[in-house]
Amino acid sequence: MSESPPDFEGYSCPLPLPPGDRVVLGHGSGGRLSRDLLTRLLLPALGTAAPRHLDDSAVLQFGSELLAFTTDSHVVSPLFFPGGDIGRLAVCGTVNDLAMVGARPMALTAGFVLEEGLEFGELGRILESMAQAAREAGVYIAAGDTKVVQRGAADKMFINTSGVGWVAPGQAISGAGAKPGDVVLLSGPIGDHGMAVLSAREDLGFETDLVSDVAPLNHMVHAMCEAGPVNALRDPTRGGLATALKEIADQSGVSIELHEKTIPVRPAVRAACELMGFDPLHVANEGKLVACVPAEASERVLEAMRASRYGEEACRIGEVGHGTRGRVTLQTAIGGTRLIDMLAGEMLPRIC
Amino acid sequence: MSESPPDFEGYSCPLPLPPGDRVVLGHGSGGRLSRDLLTRLLLPALGTAAPRHLDDSAVLQFGSELLAFTTDSHVVSPLFFPGGDIGRLAVCGTVNDLAMVGARPMALTAGFVLEEGLEFGELGRILESMAQAAREAGVYIAAGDTKVVQRGAADKMFINTSGVGWVAPGQAISGAGAKPGDVVLLSGPIGDHGMAVLSAREDLGFETDLVSDVAPLNHMVHAMCEAGPVNALRDPTRGGLATALKEIADQSGVSIELHEKTIPVRPAVRAACELMGFDPLHVANEGKLVACVPAEASERVLEAMRASRYGEEACRIGEVGHGTRGRVTLQTAIGGTRLIDMLAGEMLPRIC
Repeated sequence: MSESPPDFEGYSCPLPLPPGDRVVLGHGSGGRLSRDLLTRLLLPALGTAAPRHLDDSAVLQFGSELLAFTTDSHVVSPLFFPGGDIGRLAVCGTVNDLAMVGARPMALTAGFVLEEGLEFGELGRILESMAQAAREAGVYIAAGDTKVVQRGAADKMFINTSGVGWVAPGQAISGAGAKPGDVVLLSGPIGDHGMAVLSAREDLGFETDLVSDVAPLNHMVHAMCEAGPVNALRDPTRGGLATALKEIADQSGVSIELHEKTIPVRPAVRAACELMGFDPLHVANEGKLVACVPAEASERVLEAMRASRYGEEACRIGEVGHGTRGRVTLQTAIGGTRLIDMLAGEMLPRIC
Repeated sequence: MSESPPDFEGYSCPLPLPPGDRVVLGHGSGGRLSRDLLTRLLLPALGTAAPRHLDDSAVLQFGSELLAFTTDSHVVSPLFFPGGDIGRLAVCGTVNDLAMVGARPMALTAGFVLEEGLEFGELGRILESMAQAAREAGVYIAAGDTKVVQRGAADKMFINTSGVGWVAPGQAISGAGAKPGDVVLLSGPIGDHGMAVLSAREDLGFETDLVSDVAPLNHMVHAMCEAGPVNALRDPTRGGLATALKEIADQSGVSIELHEKTIPVRPAVRAACELMGFDPLHVANEGKLVACVPAEASERVLEAMRASRYGEEACRIGEVGHGTRGRVTLQTAIGGTRLIDMLAGEMLPRIC
């Protein structure tokens, strides 16, 4: 805190927050540093005003109903990328956070921070994209807010979308529900979103094959829940599949074993990851989910996924086990075993 | 649209949006230009995915319950100002938007956009301030999200707070409910917040007397509703008291007559406004409300306001009439009559 001005009433972090006393890009990665920021600063400082642990959405008793409530701010750069834009991303991201706790998304809010000088044409296109995604998901954009900051005080446009969903009695799903014996299902190839956004920033030479998967998953989740019980769900966004599964393993107190050969990665995504030195397991997705499902229901649930628009390439990628709690291992294609952990630093800032 | 790149699929605004084809600071003023942006671009582009008109909060049927849902992004500069900070502002702003539709605020979400390099000390103080305001209002911060952007892509910190509230059957209040014969009540002196933030930016010479009024008003609204019917409510934030009353007059299809002598303005605020050429009627408040109440209930409601922590200086400032719909007039202190309109341009950017 030595760099604080003299009249600064210093706030002491309850726990040390490496590296240093300032926010770095990695704190927005969705991985290890994000988790540190949350558990070491945000939650302790908010104290009893906030829950101890956070799922993709909070689930609250609301009168006689169960309400799911969530928020996401979107800062993706550039605003438009192959397969989508910040508007579609903002709607789908929040719809999916609601779906991941078993809720039926009902309504969203949209909070815009606009930089002075933004073209109405760009804003209009993004709004139409939001409307289209909302119609597809079947949600209503019930309220909004617009702030404008002077040139240079924001990068074109940030969009916050918050959402509410209805949870049927007894139907709440959490990252804490995975059980030994469960089968791990993945709804399709990983890494598409992250590499598509990267391709919109840099000339990778094979952009045409890199397309974001950004999509609303609520209809697929609904079909999955009808087909059989779903014990745990998560959408592997920031931090990728590895982070999502590590979170499930931690929350549920189980081990997870994955089979590398069964995890689908499109050739263009694999090539781009190799070029950039990225692990596809850590690259963000915006239209994928991973589910832990009792073995006896897994074929039915997998069929329901494959019959859904965004789950045609769904597959089984591993099992939940009795091993060390929170341990995620990967049986590699060449026969070895690798420990899987959350994304450590920051790979691709402003991916969502 | 001539400055668009060649591959830009132009979006045509449904109605022309003066001035020009780009966002200007005035579009975030909360006044006339904000209204234009909303009605000419945002709502038409969102189409059937959004409501035709927006109150401070949306009120939705949620199973068997009525749910109020709202959002606000906060970009105030500087982050700390006399009487408050962006954290207290973010919690109170959303709590008050819920209270203005007659809802009991239940839970908030907090979405942070942080600039790389922000000190944890500042963030921690702001989080503690949010927690304190949440405890005072009796709301729970149920979910959150943190994004980090590189240095220069945001100005330190923006906070979005969205909120849900419970509306008792038949208790929803709207800006459209004012009726001829209603008395207009104001909860205290106006202009405090706007001039306090300005004083934190510029050296006005009498800063010590300029203190923001930022406060949660939900407990006062609850007491007012117990004391008698409240036909219309609004918190005069961006755009000030003039804009709030013009909105009520428009929405309710009534005229409103105000008495200048009865509208309280603290001496320091009046002096600062004169120095800067501002009309206190257009300066933002963050801990005030204006209510239209049936005459027969107005004394009881006024008493309830004065018995509340943030309503001690509440007073009667005018009446709702049968005159031209949407017309707000001010009987000036020197005996004239002045038409009151929304804030036209932008007076104080990034006030909230």
